[in-house]
Amino acid sequence: VRRLRLVLEYDGTRFCGFQRQPEGPSIQACIEDELSRVCGHPVTVVAAGRTDAGVHALGQVLHLDTEGRIAPDRLLLAVNTRLAPRLVIRRAEETEPEFHARFSAASRTYHYWMAREWPSPFLGRYVLHAPRLRADAAERMRAALDGLSGTHDFGAFCAAGAQVHTTVRTVQRAALVECGGLLRLELTADGFLHSMVRIITGLLLEIGSGAREPEALVQARDAPSRGRAAMTAPAHGLFLARVAYRDGFVGGPDDAGDRPWPEGR
Amino acid sequence: VRRLRLVLEYDGTRFCGFQRQPEGPSIQACIEDELSRVCGHPVTVVAAGRTDAGVHALGQVLHLDTEGRIAPDRLLLAVNTRLAPRLVIRRAEETEPEFHARFSAASRTYHYWMAREWPSPFLGRYVLHAPRLRADAAERMRAALDGLSGTHDFGAFCAAGAQVHTTVRTVQRAALVECGGLLRLELTADGFLHSMVRIITGLLLEIGSGAREPEALVQARDAPSRGRAAMTAPAHGLFLARVAYRDGFVGGPDDAGDRPWPEGR
Repeated sequence: VRRLRLVLEYDGTRFCGFQRQPEGPSIQACIEDELSRVCGHPVTVVAAGRTDAGVHALGQVLHLDTEGRIAPDRLLLAVNTRLAPRLVIRRAEETEPEFHARFSAASRTYHYWMAREWPSPFLGRYVLHAPRLRADAAERMRAALDGLSGTHDFGAFCAAGAQVHTTVRTVQRAALVECGGLLRLELTADGFLHSMVRIITGLLLEIGSGAREPEALVQARDAPSRGRAAMTAPAHGLFLARVAYRDGFVGGPDDAGDRPWPEGR
Repeated sequence: VRRLRLVLEYDGTRFCGFQRQPEGPSIQACIEDELSRVCGHPVTVVAAGRTDAGVHALGQVLHLDTEGRIAPDRLLLAVNTRLAPRLVIRRAEETEPEFHARFSAASRTYHYWMAREWPSPFLGRYVLHAPRLRADAAERMRAALDGLSGTHDFGAFCAAGAQVHTTVRTVQRAALVECGGLLRLELTADGFLHSMVRIITGLLLEIGSGAREPEALVQARDAPSRGRAAMTAPAHGLFLARVAYRDGFVGGPDDAGDRPWPEGR
């Protein structure tokens, strides 16, 4: 038995999310069906992050065990030929049997894309149009993000009904980047609660539009009363951008390629 | 009666082309329906280029006449609110009654995007995956394009059955640009024959993969025997990028913004 790890890009638009579900096409079912065909036996994958319906990935990491002898680059070719372009394996390699896509991860990075102007039709499925953002929205959002990082109870930013052992997480980095007329929120943490990035984005949108002040983000995080702190932003602006592992492995583009479309001319 | 001109971006994926047709949703029907609603009377538009099914636009230019009093920026807002993101009006303004979207155009620029590697899922609908391209494909294609420009009979690059007065056109610029791991063909001419860019692209793909030599492009153009010179490349890599007018007006992004996705971080 060999353990393989894969780095996956996908457009989440027409999927019901990563996880296999009775109704609707999931990323998991889609990739497991192809991998099983290629490996010649039923394959189950484990993912770094179970993205919700409509959420995209630039650097989703999976592991799987196979008894087959197929070379990783042949597997990549066979799967991509059937599933590209909506789902593309970017990297496939043999790994230590101890490697675990979910539990060996040291950090995950999510991006959320927003724009005050109508985004181009070619980005409309990947960028939230937020016409209420003020001209100084980026500054206001940056001020709000200033106090977010560190180890805190982020329970206020967790979807209702989520079953978790603890709501304490460590946010390692929180930044807002302006890129070609768009805004990109970048959050890196050891782990994220269910809908955490989208609830933080919802609050940032209110701050950026002037409905709330920049202090509201940290105040919501630390408020004694529980309950959702803000509207959950739509799924289509969200990307699982990168997963970094304790052994140094990084799934997803490094800083230089941090966008789903190419740079330069 | 006032004449307005509009600059339009659209994702052609799910349209049957620009021109209104009995079956299938066309760009023209889509925008005319909204404009008629907003203007309060039936509106007919004239376009710079009638893009085929699946072809995208960054800088399609339209004109229309209206008896209504709506301000151009209000019209833009009303239409975009209904049609964005798959169709976005980038610019709307009143113009001279002599302006004609089709006949006043001095040049049109089309882009065709290709990639040897699987393009990202977020570009898969806009970039042709061409795995047979050799590592030196860009050089070979550039050598082929060298002799293409100028005033020539381009009849060899015209779809069968097209009804045209003359197949002589003036190609003002033919270039191949490498951009973030992708290749972009850029063609500017006073006008294009039906499928001309896609047939030239088809031939360039053969040249880039080594099936034909760079000289084959100019040879095909000048061959005495008529008939299609190559396979027609698929529609989804093609963009109507820009239309330039004799009065100096340019629809579509200028050189600095020549891609449908944003640059920079």
